[in-house]
Amino acid sequence: MKLVLIRHGESEWNQKNLFTGWTDVDLTANGIDEAQNAGSLLKQDGFDFDICYTSYLKRAIHTLNLILEKLDRQWLPVIKTWKLNERHYGAIQGLNKAETAQKYGEEQVKIWRRSFAIRPPELNENDERSPRLQIQYRNENQKELPLCESLEDTIARVVPYFEKNIRKDMIDGKQVLIAAHGNSIRALVKYFEKLSEKDITEVNIPTGIPLVYEFDDKWNVLKKYYLGDQEQIQAKMQSVTDQGKVSKI
Amino acid sequence: MKLVLIRHGESEWNQKNLFTGWTDVDLTANGIDEAQNAGSLLKQDGFDFDICYTSYLKRAIHTLNLILEKLDRQWLPVIKTWKLNERHYGAIQGLNKAETAQKYGEEQVKIWRRSFAIRPPELNENDERSPRLQIQYRNENQKELPLCESLEDTIARVVPYFEKNIRKDMIDGKQVLIAAHGNSIRALVKYFEKLSEKDITEVNIPTGIPLVYEFDDKWNVLKKYYLGDQEQIQAKMQSVTDQGKVSKI
Repeated sequence: MKLVLIRHGESEWNQKNLFTGWTDVDLTANGIDEAQNAGSLLKQDGFDFDICYTSYLKRAIHTLNLILEKLDRQWLPVIKTWKLNERHYGAIQGLNKAETAQKYGEEQVKIWRRSFAIRPPELNENDERSPRLQIQYRNENQKELPLCESLEDTIARVVPYFEKNIRKDMIDGKQVLIAAHGNSIRALVKYFEKLSEKDITEVNIPTGIPLVYEFDDKWNVLKKYYLGDQEQIQAKMQSVTDQGKVSKI
Repeated sequence: MKLVLIRHGESEWNQKNLFTGWTDVDLTANGIDEAQNAGSLLKQDGFDFDICYTSYLKRAIHTLNLILEKLDRQWLPVIKTWKLNERHYGAIQGLNKAETAQKYGEEQVKIWRRSFAIRPPELNENDERSPRLQIQYRNENQKELPLCESLEDTIARVVPYFEKNIRKDMIDGKQVLIAAHGNSIRALVKYFEKLSEKDITEVNIPTGIPLVYEFDDKWNVLKKYYLGDQEQIQAKMQSVTDQGKVSKI
């Protein structure tokens, strides 16, 4: 069984170095290029799919649409779910990562970004950033919608969704493509590779690079690899690590 | 209950005046404009949706995507189904309408285009245009896939699909948008308005114009209207009627 994951291409707020979370910002021109390149890589390497999953956020939806264009697979079924959304960053959504580091210290920012179980400050229920007030989530179970999340919280919604839905498709022999976000993909990486809480906080997912997992029938990982130029991928992963440093202001 | 239907914007083969059917051609630049205008009209008039349906054909999928961009509703669920595809034109797919008229006579072309129950010549099973050989339809029930269709055949797949799926959403209070094709929309128009076989063959659906139906709780049509400039819409409907005339070569 094979599964392809892709983190959306660069977004307007990746570029501005802001905490994005569930803020629904679009891809930059560079992000569009990344998504198109990902589509070309998948096509070139003969990948094909039966079903796609993505989040409610347009940077992931557009990444997926651009890949489907390259593959000429616009007709594939696409399931959108908030369960694959980025981690909800609570009240720090919209703050600049480097400025936040200057204000609270690099260590605190690193804790909010990289700790496993510590949540950032919660959104006020009446905050317009609250998903309970946003039209996208009007048909969802309101009690499930978070006002902030730790990585642990994100895992607690991503993994059960995977187990109930995507896993079933794969067992049925379907080729699945998931276009999602840094932390929703980390949730799956931890689950597939049985990583410790500490190890997963050190994993960086580069934007716009197809990540392929191959499993045996007991869900052991046989192979894991990124498609494309391996040096460029390493550089991208390092750039994610550097975002919370004061030197990036 | 309200329902919005839209025929895709102008396609590459509408422009070339070819019988398109299930051929998966894209929108022209004009067709993209039409779809974006449709999105703006819907937004301006305060329309919103809970779920969207479209076909397996990219001219309809792209029309829908462009509308969702204008409405900033990329996150809406979209169901794709071949049951909403254009009528399958069998062996005349790819022929020029006006040249076909010159060869077989305007009357024969009018019969193929406009009769209710007469099918165009069937595709050979081994023809590469056969949906049974096309990758899009590999997961579908092969026996249901047509090798040509009359309007009656198209109705026989569109209406049951509507009754089983879309109707149910509407009864549940969902606002539905359908992006489809001239003949799959005519199937629904006949069904909603209880038109005779003769009357439906005279109905033309303009490209890229939102068509709104309002129903009472017994599915009687209370109101039916196109959004936008009414004179322009009349001109568009006439241009569809003219396509099969020899004078259009």
